[in-house]
Amino acid sequence: MAGTDSSQPINYAPTPAIILCEPQLGENIGSAARAMANFGLWDLRLVRPRDGWPNEKAIVAASKADHVLERVTVYETLEEAIADLTLVYATTARSRDMQKEVYGPEEASATMATHIRKGEKVGLLFGRERWGLLNDEVALADAIVTLPVEAAFASLNIAQAVLLMSYEFRRTSEEGKALPFGDGLHEPAPRNELVGLMEHLETVLEGSGFFTAPDKKPSVITNLRTALTRGRFTSQEIRTLRGVISSIDRRHERPNPNRQKSQKDE
Amino acid sequence: MAGTDSSQPINYAPTPAIILCEPQLGENIGSAARAMANFGLWDLRLVRPRDGWPNEKAIVAASKADHVLERVTVYETLEEAIADLTLVYATTARSRDMQKEVYGPEEASATMATHIRKGEKVGLLFGRERWGLLNDEVALADAIVTLPVEAAFASLNIAQAVLLMSYEFRRTSEEGKALPFGDGLHEPAPRNELVGLMEHLETVLEGSGFFTAPDKKPSVITNLRTALTRGRFTSQEIRTLRGVISSIDRRHERPNPNRQKSQKDE
Repeated sequence: MAGTDSSQPINYAPTPAIILCEPQLGENIGSAARAMANFGLWDLRLVRPRDGWPNEKAIVAASKADHVLERVTVYETLEEAIADLTLVYATTARSRDMQKEVYGPEEASATMATHIRKGEKVGLLFGRERWGLLNDEVALADAIVTLPVEAAFASLNIAQAVLLMSYEFRRTSEEGKALPFGDGLHEPAPRNELVGLMEHLETVLEGSGFFTAPDKKPSVITNLRTALTRGRFTSQEIRTLRGVISSIDRRHERPNPNRQKSQKDE
Repeated sequence: MAGTDSSQPINYAPTPAIILCEPQLGENIGSAARAMANFGLWDLRLVRPRDGWPNEKAIVAASKADHVLERVTVYETLEEAIADLTLVYATTARSRDMQKEVYGPEEASATMATHIRKGEKVGLLFGRERWGLLNDEVALADAIVTLPVEAAFASLNIAQAVLLMSYEFRRTSEEGKALPFGDGLHEPAPRNELVGLMEHLETVLEGSGFFTAPDKKPSVITNLRTALTRGRFTSQEIRTLRGVISSIDRRHERPNPNRQKSQKDE
């Protein structure tokens, strides 16, 4: 799914900060950066990364999300990492039995987007690979966010959780409504060309003896026209289809070498 | 974000088939299986996997999504892999200049869900790691699906794309509305307990000489009551806060060893 257009400038619009608490593996930091970059997030903050920073494995896993890696900030404490934020959500897959609201990703993203529009800074906390966020870290957050995973199989790693939250945030924004391409569909042909195709086909079928029961002919034609209309053919496609019909119609006019050969083999 | 409840049975409800065309790395097949399992998908089909099947690396990367791996089916051709499907979407990050509609993940998921409700079988095609789907593979699909990635950085691997589409499908379904836990918030305390806290605090503040300007007292009280109401405290929290107030209020009644020590140090 690679489709980077490197002529496009990176957009540093306000988006949520992603805060990883004591991440253990550089690969996960890099994959999180890559996930963020795909959906326009760029503010990655690390609290006490186990293997220090910068990290070679993170660079490899980031798959050229260099603009995110270059801006990474590292903190000794979570309190410092979230000091400038006014809205903080903690992501967790486990119930904490804490008096905190639990939101799904859509609701959380909508609230974050509203705060960002008002000029506020928001952030999402993610815990360690092995045991997630500590309760005293969750306590610093305004609310909990969890993903609607299957109870019988709930196993997302940090980078996957960051990817889904980044995607959700993007989806709530204007950019999320715009797809990277629309394949500039050609207009379907004007209806007279479609009717020309239908009449061409019907004339050929008349000649080939297709309409064996004259009383059923009108309904057969209706069904054929219904099927052909559904394709919303372009002018070019109609020309091709008319060529196809003519080609089959004329096949007895000239010898077909394959057909003769296959008959000889039998 | 691990939170599997292994007492829950796996649910094999009808969901889209995920078809990987000539996947090269076992890790990606395994990660795709793990991604699917998180959101209740289980029908994984492989067309000519480069390193054959089964694949050790896939098993490791699947992170115990064994029920998906055990059901994997392998095909020689894409045509065979999609033979039983009535709706097929091709995922791609690149424009193909083909006369095919291009949908975003939400629109595609909604249409897939509608078809599944009618008892039809649907599938999503994903291409090879290096160059995605071939045009003749895309031609077999009803439409194209692409993700709303940043034009300046579009780099999702197969497993990430499978994760996002699986999540989107889940989001459109009933299960997607249900979060795995809600943390069973306690009710906020009845209002008389909150008023009791306010009056307690105000009495203590009266005694401590907090209200220096009598004409401003009503508005100060209004502001305090506004702030305290916003917390939506539980009965337990109100008891704790009243304990806090009493404790501070009584601090001059008994010697504080720390305070005395600190004064001695100075």
